[in-house]
Amino acid sequence: MTTSMNHVIGVDLGGTKTAAGVVAPSGEVLMSETIPTMNRAGGEAILDATAALITGLVERAADAGISVSGVGIGSAGVIDAVVGSVVSATDAIHGWAGTALVAGLSSRLSLTAPSVRTVRAVNDVHAHALGEAWLGAAAGSSSSLMVAFGTGVGGSFVLGGTPVLGHRFVGGHVGHFASPFAYTDGVALPCVCGGSGHVEAIASGPALYEAFLRFGGSAVDAVDTRGVFALASAAHDAAPAAGSADGRAAALCAIDVGAAAAGQAVGGLINILDPETVVISGGLADAGELWWKPMEFALRQELLAPLASVPVVRARLGNTAAIVGAAKLVLK
Amino acid sequence: MTTSMNHVIGVDLGGTKTAAGVVAPSGEVLMSETIPTMNRAGGEAILDATAALITGLVERAADAGISVSGVGIGSAGVIDAVVGSVVSATDAIHGWAGTALVAGLSSRLSLTAPSVRTVRAVNDVHAHALGEAWLGAAAGSSSSLMVAFGTGVGGSFVLGGTPVLGHRFVGGHVGHFASPFAYTDGVALPCVCGGSGHVEAIASGPALYEAFLRFGGSAVDAVDTRGVFALASAAHDAAPAAGSADGRAAALCAIDVGAAAAGQAVGGLINILDPETVVISGGLADAGELWWKPMEFALRQELLAPLASVPVVRARLGNTAAIVGAAKLVLK
Repeated sequence: MTTSMNHVIGVDLGGTKTAAGVVAPSGEVLMSETIPTMNRAGGEAILDATAALITGLVERAADAGISVSGVGIGSAGVIDAVVGSVVSATDAIHGWAGTALVAGLSSRLSLTAPSVRTVRAVNDVHAHALGEAWLGAAAGSSSSLMVAFGTGVGGSFVLGGTPVLGHRFVGGHVGHFASPFAYTDGVALPCVCGGSGHVEAIASGPALYEAFLRFGGSAVDAVDTRGVFALASAAHDAAPAAGSADGRAAALCAIDVGAAAAGQAVGGLINILDPETVVISGGLADAGELWWKPMEFALRQELLAPLASVPVVRARLGNTAAIVGAAKLVLK
Repeated sequence: MTTSMNHVIGVDLGGTKTAAGVVAPSGEVLMSETIPTMNRAGGEAILDATAALITGLVERAADAGISVSGVGIGSAGVIDAVVGSVVSATDAIHGWAGTALVAGLSSRLSLTAPSVRTVRAVNDVHAHALGEAWLGAAAGSSSSLMVAFGTGVGGSFVLGGTPVLGHRFVGGHVGHFASPFAYTDGVALPCVCGGSGHVEAIASGPALYEAFLRFGGSAVDAVDTRGVFALASAAHDAAPAAGSADGRAAALCAIDVGAAAAGQAVGGLINILDPETVVISGGLADAGELWWKPMEFALRQELLAPLASVPVVRARLGNTAAIVGAAKLVLK
């Protein structure tokens, strides 16, 4: 059995789970594993668990004759990609801010997986976008803008194979600019960032559910964003009535407004950045035509004439995007 | 007299005038000249006049013992920086769209100024931003965002010494994304791009004058944006009453709204791009504290916490910014 060099491990470290995979130089994910992120246990405990996850994969790879030379990490939070530390993070991962992510993993792996010589980290959204830019929906494009609409709204502009991380590694916070849709009766909706009137405050999944309630929907008809889509689908398909008539109307309105806000925001970003390809990702992008159609309509309405034919495509790699993108950080 | 090599000419080709200067490798503008742009005469006539302008400067430089090796052009319109042609342009320069800018100038200069071996062109706003990034308000920054508020609203993100031109060379149209301020009574204000509700529709100089009229100001009190500022300054300084009381109130309101829209827009862009330095330029940036203060207040209110201390500075190079930036395109 010959040893295959130049394989690496990509890690997608999120608020609820951490997935890692052994990635070939081609980008193929050969084996992978997922663990819950110990999001209440503090940074050091997460590093211990992540190092164990990586070590296990290195050993599985070795059994298959594969040597792992590097680890790339896409992590929740603002990640200093030069120092390799967590600059800041929401409370979704308690004690994550301030963690010496790269140094802490490197020292642990030096004992358990000495073949790993390089460890790098970026924010998970940037890893996700890099994966799609390399092998997914934007493969072959010289530049791409990915915007993900899910629990939050985030994105990344990938230029010449490199995500634009920003001078303080805060770049890509595309959910935090003003949206005319994020005002009700002239009052700006509060945003999770502490500001108000932002895209995320109307176009994220949870914001869509809040809009449903504002439009007269009730928790009896739908308990979450998924429920809003189920209700709207039933209304749309003229299926046997699900929920109340008011609830169905509120669901359709909330989806229309959230999708229009999303599309208008992405359209404006296209005018600013002029990416070759635009990739839309996240749970809402996967929710079907009910969201996609008004989103793309609003997006195209925003575009300057020379941008009219910009391709706008759905993300393609699913959950492996961030693993593959993180791996790319350390692949030669 | 020794001949000094490696000097170039930078050209700033705008809708009303064309300025050119001989630029030393240090960025110093040694001699310059300005002519009216023949904006009704068509592309070929403009190329003739521009080639004559450049040739005159090359001859003046030669008299001073300076050899000019290249010409960089910052031009109005969407400029294909690879092919060197005008992709599209507004009617401010009749017949400019479609002009073979670089090829047309090169062939003319090959006869009259054979020392010129390299000609390159980009859009003028990108040249302007590159000048400020190289030697002006953002000198020494690894990345900068320049936004200019004047007749229109435009900008450029300069990353590692290179303006991000965009895949179709449309990047930097930062005036054309949605602004909550660009809605009156829920109706979006029309934008010059053909869209509506955009930043430029409320934050440009002409938009500020339109807002003055909407707020009850009249042409008796102020005939243009400059007049609105004069009126507001008089009100603000409690100077002997200029114009009507309604006019003064409308002027103050229009400036506040335009400035707030400008600041909110730039703040959102900072969250997205995280530039090391932010440069504000254009006529409104030069209009004094009456505009700058509400602009910067709105800008800082928008910022995510880790961006709170981003430097926001006024452009420094004035009219020479685009000449110097255009020159940088062809300086080694």
